[in-house]
Amino acid sequence: MLELRHDGSTPLVAQITEGIRALIEGHTLKPGSKLPSIRAFAAKHGVSVFTVVEAYDRLVALGLIHSRANAGFFITRSAVLAQDDASPEREKPVFDTAWFLRQIFENRDWPLIPGCGWLPDDWMFADGIRRGLRKLATQELTLSGYGDPMGLLALRQFIAQNLVQELRIQAQSQQVLLTHGSSQGMDLVARALIQPGDTVLIDDPGYPNLMSLLRSHGAQLVGVPRTRTGYDLTALEQLLQQHRPKAFFTQPRLQSPTGSSVSLAQMHQVLQWASQHDFMVVENDIYADMDTSQQLSLASLDQLQRVIYLGNYSKTISPNFRVGFLLAHPQVVEQLVQLKMLSGLTSSEVAEQLMLNVVTDGRWRKHLKHLHERLAKAHDFVAQQLQNLGFELYCEPREGMYLWARHPAIEDSTVMVEAAVQSQILLGAGRLFFVNSQPTGWLRFNVAFGVQPPLWQWLEQWLTQRQLLNPKKLL
Amino acid sequence: MLELRHDGSTPLVAQITEGIRALIEGHTLKPGSKLPSIRAFAAKHGVSVFTVVEAYDRLVALGLIHSRANAGFFITRSAVLAQDDASPEREKPVFDTAWFLRQIFENRDWPLIPGCGWLPDDWMFADGIRRGLRKLATQELTLSGYGDPMGLLALRQFIAQNLVQELRIQAQSQQVLLTHGSSQGMDLVARALIQPGDTVLIDDPGYPNLMSLLRSHGAQLVGVPRTRTGYDLTALEQLLQQHRPKAFFTQPRLQSPTGSSVSLAQMHQVLQWASQHDFMVVENDIYADMDTSQQLSLASLDQLQRVIYLGNYSKTISPNFRVGFLLAHPQVVEQLVQLKMLSGLTSSEVAEQLMLNVVTDGRWRKHLKHLHERLAKAHDFVAQQLQNLGFELYCEPREGMYLWARHPAIEDSTVMVEAAVQSQILLGAGRLFFVNSQPTGWLRFNVAFGVQPPLWQWLEQWLTQRQLLNPKKLL
Repeated sequence: MLELRHDGSTPLVAQITEGIRALIEGHTLKPGSKLPSIRAFAAKHGVSVFTVVEAYDRLVALGLIHSRANAGFFITRSAVLAQDDASPEREKPVFDTAWFLRQIFENRDWPLIPGCGWLPDDWMFADGIRRGLRKLATQELTLSGYGDPMGLLALRQFIAQNLVQELRIQAQSQQVLLTHGSSQGMDLVARALIQPGDTVLIDDPGYPNLMSLLRSHGAQLVGVPRTRTGYDLTALEQLLQQHRPKAFFTQPRLQSPTGSSVSLAQMHQVLQWASQHDFMVVENDIYADMDTSQQLSLASLDQLQRVIYLGNYSKTISPNFRVGFLLAHPQVVEQLVQLKMLSGLTSSEVAEQLMLNVVTDGRWRKHLKHLHERLAKAHDFVAQQLQNLGFELYCEPREGMYLWARHPAIEDSTVMVEAAVQSQILLGAGRLFFVNSQPTGWLRFNVAFGVQPPLWQWLEQWLTQRQLLNPKKLL
Repeated sequence: MLELRHDGSTPLVAQITEGIRALIEGHTLKPGSKLPSIRAFAAKHGVSVFTVVEAYDRLVALGLIHSRANAGFFITRSAVLAQDDASPEREKPVFDTAWFLRQIFENRDWPLIPGCGWLPDDWMFADGIRRGLRKLATQELTLSGYGDPMGLLALRQFIAQNLVQELRIQAQSQQVLLTHGSSQGMDLVARALIQPGDTVLIDDPGYPNLMSLLRSHGAQLVGVPRTRTGYDLTALEQLLQQHRPKAFFTQPRLQSPTGSSVSLAQMHQVLQWASQHDFMVVENDIYADMDTSQQLSLASLDQLQRVIYLGNYSKTISPNFRVGFLLAHPQVVEQLVQLKMLSGLTSSEVAEQLMLNVVTDGRWRKHLKHLHERLAKAHDFVAQQLQNLGFELYCEPREGMYLWARHPAIEDSTVMVEAAVQSQILLGAGRLFFVNSQPTGWLRFNVAFGVQPPLWQWLEQWLTQRQLLNPKKLL
């Protein structure tokens, strides 16, 4: 029913998106009916699974289709109506995770990007990095060869020692695998664990790029609802009755987007269930360096039996070196290192040596302490500003990078995000963080980019124009 | 029939390898019978496809099973016999690609590694790299953010200009995608192009790690025989009658392992067939910098319509920075950049800036010229040594890194490779380079590591012990 042209004049994703849209509009695809599975569609039309994932994602974002866990994709009942309303704007770029990521990455130079996931340049450890680079120029470097497939031994030893001290994870350096950022770590773990059709649990809301990655490996995602204090364990227990997940990808500490953290008792419960229901736990702990409470982690309890632990220095030193690490059971590491070599040989020993220079720099701890203080102040300021404008805060961690907030009068924050882009302001659109991309009022604010007055001026003006700042209107 | 234990006491690959071996020995699996497909086995036993690929690879290397293109894996008729002979040595490590890669990477410090794929440290551009690092320490670096998803613009512009000048590929910088080494480029291309079950053509002999990578994506590999002067076009034409390949992964220039190069006329023919039979051509041109003849490439003819072109500076500057690049049609680049972000966000802008500093260093061209002269001398020396010992040379390129050679009295060079390992010498075992891992007398010699006398002393001694140096014995 859908004919794709492989001649290259129109991108395949657009052909699929537009083709299915046309079939829905023409009532060939009836509301409530099921679309072919991603694999089946890909096989039938001779396109890559990735292309179909992206096209379906766009259709979900457009509200034309929706996914049901373990059941597949269905035409949304209100799709035709929604479509008729939207048709004059068809030229507008599709608002989805790929679009948002592109906005973030292509507009890195915009002054106001509270929707992004990194700290401003002048918050980074620039001095330390310069010292690290100068040191690197004098160090004995191995230029030939590809370095150790596991990554630079000295950095692995440093990480292992650090994690013993700070998180009481008793890992040997042989259990530390260095990766090209923690994103490569995620990809390796997904490749090793997931087969098409597998059910995978994930924080909901959680990390959009991870959701796309897992789907590209054929995972059926099931969201584990976050609460202000961690997981919704009642919901998780029910999900475990219905599904047989292969793994749970989660970020217990200072989570993106909510800023919430999970208690040790909750971690203990999740690990018990992981054992009973036989699934792996993939712990993304990339905000550990920002946590002054030094709470332990899932891996601290489990000691890398079922937990694969991922970390990096991207958030506090620089994402630009692309040095991440993961810790796991030796047998898992064995499998991952082979996958690492298959898909990119080794990681960069030069970048790893530079990172080691920086984290062993005498002023690194002091810089981190300064960063904590600066983040805490930014949290207080942004929380106050948001509350002044009538926003509700999800929780107030006063640490990490994010505040998750919504305005009670705004049901779908997408309208605000799209308006902000016109003023070169990038807001963190809440729906992108949900497994089912449902419309939501929530927004993610990176507090470090929230200290600039123009952001609040813009928000105030936008809310005023819509008469949403008068408290009487809110009642 | 095969029960796997997921409790982690024995690695799954070993369980599968040993399990199938036992079933063959016990005659439960009859000679000539077919094994389940990789996907089917993985699904049935709840293990990853990668695990099964590796186990089957090991069984192929052990001579217990063999693959037939597009048909699957079969128990080798002589397997039981071969096994009986080999059983006292069962403790010996399995000799396969994974084993060899591990040997290479774990024994990088051995003095004699003519089997490896890089140049010795003192052949690299160490001065230039040090200058590049010092310059980097003074440069304005963006520390926050992840850099452009496509890679550092200035390096992409440099590469595009260079390829216009040297290979007449009319590419814009938007068609240049920087990757974490060309290995990541291969992986992205494989992900985008290949679906499980797809037939993929590949140089035979060719690059072992690429074969494993493609198989891990579910590709059925069909080898395109190399000749001393390029491709066996008669064989390729026949293969195209039998198969409908999705892509041809090839290295036309100074190919590893053979050292042979393909003529422009052959390239023209292959591209015509690619158009007629609708397959993509993935051109791995990582030895371009070593080619003084400046021959054009597949991409020079096709101008990136059907050709995806991959290159890097790993071979002449350092593999340690992990900076590679690929050029493709804008629509293909679009798809690949999204896959790149999914699987690892951006590449390292710091490493890319360093690489740009090095390739724009005033002495870089001079260093390259010196390298060419040194390689030519090494080619002559190693060719002479091999011929003195009775070896036959496949061809004599006098450029690039490799000589492909065999001794007429040695049918399976694996015995020589295994003996050499005992003396901490790593030889390039020929069978690893063949799609079907068949026993072969050929060996790959990295000429830069062939200038050391102990290698020739060892080879002479080994051949003398077997009375293979007396010409009369050879007749």
